[in-house]
Amino acid sequence: MLEQINTTIKSKALQQLQRQHPLIHCMTNDVVQTFTANVLLAFGCSPAMVIEPEEAEQFAAIANGLLVNVGTLTTDRQYAMRLAVHSANKANKPWVLDPVAAGPLTFRTRFCHELLSLKPAAIRGNASEIMALAGESLGGKGVDSLNTTDDALPAAQFLAEKLATIVAISGETDYITDGTRTIAVTGGHPLMTRVVGTGCALSAVVAAFCTLAGDRLQHVATACALMKQAGETATQHCHGTGSFIPEFLDAIYQLNDDQENK
Amino acid sequence: MLEQINTTIKSKALQQLQRQHPLIHCMTNDVVQTFTANVLLAFGCSPAMVIEPEEAEQFAAIANGLLVNVGTLTTDRQYAMRLAVHSANKANKPWVLDPVAAGPLTFRTRFCHELLSLKPAAIRGNASEIMALAGESLGGKGVDSLNTTDDALPAAQFLAEKLATIVAISGETDYITDGTRTIAVTGGHPLMTRVVGTGCALSAVVAAFCTLAGDRLQHVATACALMKQAGETATQHCHGTGSFIPEFLDAIYQLNDDQENK
Amino acid sequence: MLEQINTTIKSKALQQLQRQHPLIHCMTNDVVQTFTANVLLAFGCSPAMVIEPEEAEQFAAIANGLLVNVGTLTTDRQYAMRLAVHSANKANKPWVLDPVAAGPLTFRTRFCHELLSLKPAAIRGNASEIMALAGESLGGKGVDSLNTTDDALPAAQFLAEKLATIVAISGETDYITDGTRTIAVTGGHPLMTRVVGTGCALSAVVAAFCTLAGDRLQHVATACALMKQAGETATQHCHGTGSFIPEFLDAIYQLNDDQENK
Repeated sequence: MLEQINTTIKSKALQQLQRQHPLIHCMTNDVVQTFTANVLLAFGCSPAMVIEPEEAEQFAAIANGLLVNVGTLTTDRQYAMRLAVHSANKANKPWVLDPVAAGPLTFRTRFCHELLSLKPAAIRGNASEIMALAGESLGGKGVDSLNTTDDALPAAQFLAEKLATIVAISGETDYITDGTRTIAVTGGHPLMTRVVGTGCALSAVVAAFCTLAGDRLQHVATACALMKQAGETATQHCHGTGSFIPEFLDAIYQLNDDQENK
Repeated sequence: MLEQINTTIKSKALQQLQRQHPLIHCMTNDVVQTFTANVLLAFGCSPAMVIEPEEAEQFAAIANGLLVNVGTLTTDRQYAMRLAVHSANKANKPWVLDPVAAGPLTFRTRFCHELLSLKPAAIRGNASEIMALAGESLGGKGVDSLNTTDDALPAAQFLAEKLATIVAISGETDYITDGTRTIAVTGGHPLMTRVVGTGCALSAVVAAFCTLAGDRLQHVATACALMKQAGETATQHCHGTGSFIPEFLDAIYQLNDDQENK
Repeated sequence: MLEQINTTIKSKALQQLQRQHPLIHCMTNDVVQTFTANVLLAFGCSPAMVIEPEEAEQFAAIANGLLVNVGTLTTDRQYAMRLAVHSANKANKPWVLDPVAAGPLTFRTRFCHELLSLKPAAIRGNASEIMALAGESLGGKGVDSLNTTDDALPAAQFLAEKLATIVAISGETDYITDGTRTIAVTGGHPLMTRVVGTGCALSAVVAAFCTLAGDRLQHVATACALMKQAGETATQHCHGTGSFIPEFLDAIYQLNDDQENK
């Protein structure tokens, strides 16, 4: 029933990414800007954070892909994000939603629900966030932050099918689904949750992989798998959460060589 | 006259913190967001940066503790902070003030004075900042940025007693006082001042320790002591300010084990 | 025709900087705040990010130098930057412009052109940005992001002479020119472009070196040379872009000792 990652597609997708080094327009939260940029750069992509409304609209059409992360949402930022999403759609550029903390916080949850109708190429969140997005349609079920990705899979599949998008749920096992097909990605390490921004940066990497031609479901799963892989490598070499950070970026930077030997 | 850190309380407080992993709402400056989050995560706490007024008000009641740091204050941020502080107070959650650069900058100094009446659980700053907060009451004495914590101790004690709060002054020797009792914490290393955010992150850690039941003065002193301890460990292992950063986070992450051996 | 870096001036400038540890007011983009602060601290300078209009105006007169970086420009930030620049000029403090992504983005390009008339002490950018700033005067020539610094040198010289300022173009070879004299600085490593903020941080360091008395052209070239030197050292010791970051800061921190042995 569950589909596996296709290692040939995975390997080719990484090569494709590194050859094309897509320009990713990141409208993300204040806490993870530097880390997100450095993760994209380690992958060989070009990050650019552009937030002023006029510029965000202009730049979303120029960039290859757009990330919208609602982590430190404000009214101003919301306005600029709306313009950018419409501009990306008009220019036929994929955009990805990261619904950080959707559920308990009303303002951003309302905004995420609004964005759902604007055809995201993918949505990447944790179990609770994805369940919150699907919440109303599932009968207003409350959000439990202790949910596992297994708990959230039906919500993800429902959401993906309804919106004709891809939903990726991150956790001990990641699930990536378009409502019909579902890929499970295992691996990673709990230490990844003790460093700020690994999830937010993954969403940016998902946006980057969404710019590639081919099987988008496999490509999004590749993004999830490579980040878990880098997390495992980093964990093996680090002495705590501090040294995890440079080791994680180094591991991403070295993915190319790793791939070539596989 | 000076009280010592009670090592039993210190050790238990750390264990308590790591068991409860409090959710800390950080309204802090743009420069230290990532570092603050990573310090809290290394301690086993959950950081969340929420800044939109409606959300900040809502979240301050949900989180276990709140940090208000005026480092890159704006009019919008000020408005959201006010709502969050009132909400925290209403929900009986402790909040901590970090009066970054209070004194020479009029706008934030005015705001800090306003906040003083809103019952902070603790105030954490350097000597000049604490003297600036106490300034008017001490007769409008000017602020000298070269003040030592010894110079600032009377101002700290005056402020703590007047506001029925705890004041922590950071420097070569930290003083933590409630106006009557005063704890001195020595240690640390000058290198800690050559990396941005060690003081701001300490304020977030103080907010985390303020969420614990028990002797709050000892708990705030514990926060100061553990950060100095991590700074010493990091200094021993680093080759400059760059490698200090991951070593410092690693040292915090490893504090648990260290404590258990003591 | 090209002038060399004067190693005596370079060595003395670094010592001067470390003795005076100038206070640098950074109005910079959201992505590079922490890294910029840590680079300045590693050099022995004092960074301060102050952005609220009233405070920015007040602080620009107090600080020794000002950096204006338009990376995540907003209307609010623009307003505060204008006040700060006028205040710096009035107080006779040097200010530096980093025209991040000027050219393709209309809003910031317009603002950069406005700022050009306000007597920056120096402008630091990449080839495309400098060509965009000079663009209209060179006959509306389009900006090609693939330009080398050699391509941009005439634009830099034109701009520097017209505005009576110093223009530094960063690339494989950096050029620093006042329109008449031009210094070339080689070295560095491509890895520096795979980490976010090395260029933005250089602009802050340029602002710091602009606060020194003496030959400003040589001082700006010194800033460029020292950053390239640190980049080379870091590259030799790192295993990827992640470990490059702490190694780079360590290399800057250790520059003093290096210099003393030369």
